[in-house]
Amino acid sequence: MPRFPADQLTTIVCDVLEGAGVRPEDAAVVARELVDANLVGHDSHGVIRLVQYEKQIRDGVVDHTADPELVVDTPSLALFDGHRQFGQVMAGQALGLAAERVEAQGTFTVFARNSSHIGRLGSYTTRAAEMGYVAWMSVNSPGRGPVSPFGGVDPRLPTNPISFAAPGPHGPIVLDMTSSVVAEGKVRVAYQRGDAIPEGWLADEEGQPVTDPARLYDDPTVTMLPLGGSSGFKGSGLAVAIDILCGVLSGFGVAREDMDLGNNGIWLYLVAIDAVSDRATYDRWLEGYVDWIKSSRKAPGFDEIFMPGEIEQRRRVTRERDGIMIAQPTWDQIMALANRLGVDV
Amino acid sequence: MPRFPADQLTTIVCDVLEGAGVRPEDAAVVARELVDANLVGHDSHGVIRLVQYEKQIRDGVVDHTADPELVVDTPSLALFDGHRQFGQVMAGQALGLAAERVEAQGTFTVFARNSSHIGRLGSYTTRAAEMGYVAWMSVNSPGRGPVSPFGGVDPRLPTNPISFAAPGPHGPIVLDMTSSVVAEGKVRVAYQRGDAIPEGWLADEEGQPVTDPARLYDDPTVTMLPLGGSSGFKGSGLAVAIDILCGVLSGFGVAREDMDLGNNGIWLYLVAIDAVSDRATYDRWLEGYVDWIKSSRKAPGFDEIFMPGEIEQRRRVTRERDGIMIAQPTWDQIMALANRLGVDV
Repeated sequence: MPRFPADQLTTIVCDVLEGAGVRPEDAAVVARELVDANLVGHDSHGVIRLVQYEKQIRDGVVDHTADPELVVDTPSLALFDGHRQFGQVMAGQALGLAAERVEAQGTFTVFARNSSHIGRLGSYTTRAAEMGYVAWMSVNSPGRGPVSPFGGVDPRLPTNPISFAAPGPHGPIVLDMTSSVVAEGKVRVAYQRGDAIPEGWLADEEGQPVTDPARLYDDPTVTMLPLGGSSGFKGSGLAVAIDILCGVLSGFGVAREDMDLGNNGIWLYLVAIDAVSDRATYDRWLEGYVDWIKSSRKAPGFDEIFMPGEIEQRRRVTRERDGIMIAQPTWDQIMALANRLGVDV
Repeated sequence: MPRFPADQLTTIVCDVLEGAGVRPEDAAVVARELVDANLVGHDSHGVIRLVQYEKQIRDGVVDHTADPELVVDTPSLALFDGHRQFGQVMAGQALGLAAERVEAQGTFTVFARNSSHIGRLGSYTTRAAEMGYVAWMSVNSPGRGPVSPFGGVDPRLPTNPISFAAPGPHGPIVLDMTSSVVAEGKVRVAYQRGDAIPEGWLADEEGQPVTDPARLYDDPTVTMLPLGGSSGFKGSGLAVAIDILCGVLSGFGVAREDMDLGNNGIWLYLVAIDAVSDRATYDRWLEGYVDWIKSSRKAPGFDEIFMPGEIEQRRRVTRERDGIMIAQPTWDQIMALANRLGVDV
C-alpha cells in the first residue's frame, strides 16, 4: 500500500485535476480538501473521490468552468448559486465571504444551491473555528435518500449531516455528524473489508436488523436507520430540518421521489465571539470544561474520552508526520486516470 | 382526575402566580406556556411546575421583579441578561425582539443568560414558524448534568435540548429533542408510574443498562446516556455544542463541577424565508415532501409516520376540545398552594 507525504499527494491530485481541465486555482482547492479528509482519517471523503469527480466532469454533473454567483447579498445573509462548480470551491467561497462579513454584524449566514459534493463538512467549520468563530454548517442532498424515516421501512431521507465548531483550549472543538446512525461511508468501508456491521445501522423491509453491509448496495429494500434507535424521531427530524434549511431555503431541493439525486445544498452560520462576549471571557468559561468532561471514569472498552473532533486532530498529527496510506486499488485507479489524461505523476 | 378547559386552567395558574407576587403581565405569559405544554402532551413541562416555580420565587432562584436587560444590541444580534426573571418571560422577549428585527436583515440571533427555566423549547420555535420564520433554538443548563459523556460512566453533561421549526404545508414542522437519548421527564414519568424503562436510556458505573427508573434518583452512580447508542459521540457532541453556544457565548456558564446547577442559557436564530427565497417557492418545494416521507411502508408496531411536531399538534386539537386532565396529586398540590397564598380558585 503506497504511502505519501500530504504535500506530494496534494500535488498529484492537483495535477490530475488540471489534466482534466480544472483551473489551477480550483484544482488546488479541491486537492487540498481531498487530502485534508485523508489526513484526519476520513478516507471515504479523501482522494478516493478523484476518479468519481473526473467522471462527474465528463458527465456534466460538475461544471468546472462555472463561477459561483452571488444571488442574494445583504449585510447579514447571502445566497450563492454554485452553478454545479466543485462543492469545495463553492463552500470555500461561502466560508470566505462569511468570514469577511461576520465581524461587521456579529453573525453571517450563507446559503448555497447547485453545489457539487463539498466533501467533509468539518473541514470548513474547523477553519472557521481556527479563525476564531463559532460555526454551524449543514448540507442536504435532494432525491431519494437511503435512510428510512422513523417508523417506516422504505428509503426516503438522505444522511444529511450537520457540523458545529468552536475554538477550544487545545484547538477547535468540532462535531461533524450525519443524521443517520452512521455515515454511508462506514457501511461502504465494512463492505469493502468484508466485515459484518453492528445491529442498528441497517434494516430490511420487515424492520429487522441487517448486519451484512453488502445488502445496502445489492438489495433496494434495505435502508439505513436514522440516528437515535428507539428515539429515531430525532435523527429523522434532523434530516428533515436540514432538508428544509439547506434544500428548501436555498432553492436546491429536498428528498423527493420526483427529483434527481443531487449534490449539496449548503447552510453556513458564523458567530463572532467578540460580538456577544469577548474572547478572554469565552476562554475562561472553557477552562476546566474539557478537563471536567474527560475526568469521567471510562466505560468498558474505552481508554479515553474524546472531545468532538479530537480523534481527527490526533490522526492529522500522525499522518502529517508519517504520511498517508492509500489503498492499492485506489492508487491504481488514480494512476490509470492520470495515464488516460496524459498527466505525468 | 380533574379535567379542565385550557382557558380555565390558564386563569387558575395565572391567579396563583399573581398571588405569589408575579406581575399580571408576566403571570399571563408563564401560565400560557405551562398550559401550552399540557395541551401538546408534555405534562412534565406543564402546570406540574407551578409549585416548583413558587418555591423558586421564595428561594430567590427566580426574581419575578426583574426586567430582562438588553446587554448587546446590533442589527443582527442581541444578548439579554434575564436577571433570573421567569424563563418564559425572557424567552418571550427574545422571540419578540427577533421577530421584530429579522425582516430587516433576513436573520436575527438572540442569546440570553441568567434566564430561569424557559419550559418547552418547541413552544417558541413553533410560534416563530407560525409567524413565517425558520427557527433554531437551544438552551443549556450549567452545573453537573445527569448525562455521561460518550465513552464515560460518570454524570457530566446536561440533557441540553435543541429545537428546529419551519412553516409546513399542514402547520409548522417542529423538531424538539434533547441531546440525551430521552428527556429526563420521560424517566421521571416512568418512575412515578412504577414502569420499567427500555435498555439504552440509563447505565450504571460499570456501563451496564439500568431499567429501573428509580435508580436515576436514588443512586448517584446511575447516569442518563447521550443520544446515539454506539454513535453516542453525536449526542455527547451536541450537548457540548449547545453548552458552548448557549452557556459560553451568553456568559451563562457550562457543565462544570465548580458551578451551581443553573437554569437556561438561550440561543435563538431566525431566518426570514423571503430574504433567501420567497414564500411561494418555499411552499412549492415542500409540496409533496411530506407525502413522500409519509408514503413509506410502516415498520412493525407503527400505524403511521409522523412529521416532527405532528403528534403534538394532534394532542393540542384533542385537548383543546376535551380539556386537560391533571393528575390528582398535582391538583392537590396546586390547591394547597392556592390556599396558602389566599388565592380563591
